[in-house]
Amino acid sequence: MDSTRGRPIRCKAAICRKSGEPLVIEEIEVAPPKPFEARIRILCTSLCHSDVTFWKMDAPFLQLPIILGHEAVGVVESVGEGVEGLKEGDTVVPVFLGSCEECKDCESEKSNMCSKFSFKLGVGMPRDGTSRFRDGKGETLHNFLSVSSFAEYTVVDIAHLVKIDCGIPVDKACLLSCGVSSGIGAAWKVADVHKGSSVVIFGLGSIGLAVAEGARLRGASKIIGVDLNTEKFTVGKQFGVTHFVNPKDCSEDKPVHEVIKEMTDGGADYSFECIGLASIMNDAFLSCRPGVGKTVILGVEMHGAPLSINSFELLRGKSVMGCLFGGMKPKSDIPLLAQLYLDKELNLDSFITHKVNLEDINKAFDLLQQGKSLRCVIWM
Amino acid sequence: MDSTRGRPIRCKAAICRKSGEPLVIEEIEVAPPKPFEARIRILCTSLCHSDVTFWKMDAPFLQLPIILGHEAVGVVESVGEGVEGLKEGDTVVPVFLGSCEECKDCESEKSNMCSKFSFKLGVGMPRDGTSRFRDGKGETLHNFLSVSSFAEYTVVDIAHLVKIDCGIPVDKACLLSCGVSSGIGAAWKVADVHKGSSVVIFGLGSIGLAVAEGARLRGASKIIGVDLNTEKFTVGKQFGVTHFVNPKDCSEDKPVHEVIKEMTDGGADYSFECIGLASIMNDAFLSCRPGVGKTVILGVEMHGAPLSINSFELLRGKSVMGCLFGGMKPKSDIPLLAQLYLDKELNLDSFITHKVNLEDINKAFDLLQQGKSLRCVIWM
Repeated sequence: MDSTRGRPIRCKAAICRKSGEPLVIEEIEVAPPKPFEARIRILCTSLCHSDVTFWKMDAPFLQLPIILGHEAVGVVESVGEGVEGLKEGDTVVPVFLGSCEECKDCESEKSNMCSKFSFKLGVGMPRDGTSRFRDGKGETLHNFLSVSSFAEYTVVDIAHLVKIDCGIPVDKACLLSCGVSSGIGAAWKVADVHKGSSVVIFGLGSIGLAVAEGARLRGASKIIGVDLNTEKFTVGKQFGVTHFVNPKDCSEDKPVHEVIKEMTDGGADYSFECIGLASIMNDAFLSCRPGVGKTVILGVEMHGAPLSINSFELLRGKSVMGCLFGGMKPKSDIPLLAQLYLDKELNLDSFITHKVNLEDINKAFDLLQQGKSLRCVIWM
Repeated sequence: MDSTRGRPIRCKAAICRKSGEPLVIEEIEVAPPKPFEARIRILCTSLCHSDVTFWKMDAPFLQLPIILGHEAVGVVESVGEGVEGLKEGDTVVPVFLGSCEECKDCESEKSNMCSKFSFKLGVGMPRDGTSRFRDGKGETLHNFLSVSSFAEYTVVDIAHLVKIDCGIPVDKACLLSCGVSSGIGAAWKVADVHKGSSVVIFGLGSIGLAVAEGARLRGASKIIGVDLNTEKFTVGKQFGVTHFVNPKDCSEDKPVHEVIKEMTDGGADYSFECIGLASIMNDAFLSCRPGVGKTVILGVEMHGAPLSINSFELLRGKSVMGCLFGGMKPKSDIPLLAQLYLDKELNLDSFITHKVNLEDINKAFDLLQQGKSLRCVIWM
């Protein structure tokens, strides 16, 4: 690795040059890491729904050209000045949510929202806003969510890197980088699902299924999946889903939240919205039990619509909460999840339904959009 | 008391015959209690903002003629069949929120929303929907919130009665019947305010001040009151309010939530809406700190508007929760609060700013609407 340290690396990357159009594989140049950064050789990356959501967006949400991808695992190629606790050859999981480990919020047991590296949709590195990527013509390629993992090499700030040294297979570690951790965290840290409780999950994509897995591990007795695709029930059973409702089968007289209330004798203890539609957030809210019901919002509203709920219904002892990364603290919680996998408690294997090489990354987009894949691992 | 048991009682009551118009003192007839009910001789009652809110409403929220009032204390005159644990002469606090003490929700430690006596705006007794009141012409007078305390005698279901035998002065016990308990409960049970935390309270009426009192007792280090009336700061100090913001003094460039965020270094740990306006619910939400901020809604939205909040802002680790009676379980928590008063920990005295006799009940309405009173105790 001595040959590349301190010098730009030329490598391949999948570039988004136009919103919603296939990514293009090109040769790019990745600058060496600046202070408090590490240059990472990506081993594999996986496609998360947020990549697709942003890929479809226009400016200012998507600044082109850009290297998307934020769920990955890699090996440290070199580190910049001032980096402690990470060295060349370390296996790391990059995370879109930064943590300085020093601020009031990082020190709080309750919060995962670092106030120094607060979450924002920037297009550059978190400390200086610039990019480490250039294309063959020397044009800047924007950074995505402080990760940009659809490339053989990327540069990530140490606030966004988690060291993994427990020996978990890399494709499983990759899953912990975003979606799966977010779902499990939402069940554990945000909702705090209790044994014997009832849970309803709107949307059985990977995040919804990870919520189910988290609820299963907490001993929830009823885990109801809600999805327009009935085949998801079969998939869901692998993650603890015990009941299934297809909103298409519900009537106007008895909408989905009334069906859920009937199935749970008055409302679910916990409901989760894993889709990103304000109307479904409201369905989730209405499905919850007065007095105890918690509604957890994980989906990023795809039209930017506000959450709008009946304020009288809220007064009946309900609550609504949102989270990023499932309320998990990346640096301490990802290693715990990795260990749970090695202890054969946490089911990660069933999330990986497909794998492709970087050249075929657009296939991963197709599979996810067609609802055929949970996680498609993209190997470099 | 033997002379009245089992027979109707003729007594005085303040009747609302027309929405928003002065109550009329008339002689009424109060029927004996039916099974699981008790007839109560009201000692004193106090005027809560919800009385005023409903008094101003039209059908179907207000069914006329009606006996309003739901914050009170009284003595059991007689009991109906099947009543256990309550007897003639017992001092009781009636509560708008019922509890059967047997259902799943009553047995849950988390919930105060009994599923047998679920909260609804009925106009009759909770078990059979009929009224125990008639006016001089024999016309039915409707029941309000299962209490109807603006009368010398009322009939209340035992699910809505809390026995008080610790010796607390009756006017102080009266306050625990609704507003003060709701505010303290919201701080303790719903928000779970922690020592050293920052709290912002929108609306320094009795409920808002009770939230402050609850936060003070929990050791919050910064308790910011927000009110359009600057005099409320002086009042608030008695209940632990440490800072004050008048939204009138805020600019468009720096609205109230930005002022709060600056005062709390990024947002308050807890915000409380004690007014009942959707726009202020949103201000409260925006004032909260990402990652930990809890917004508690206590106000009944006075125009029935929904709560509408930015769904992205919610994802930054915030939560919104509503409650009735502050999440308190009336039968077990009111006696605890009464004891705390006797132990000189809980400040109830400062809430009582005025007292009148039943004949002058309309003066209590005037004082509250003019913002001159916190609690005006109406003595029978």
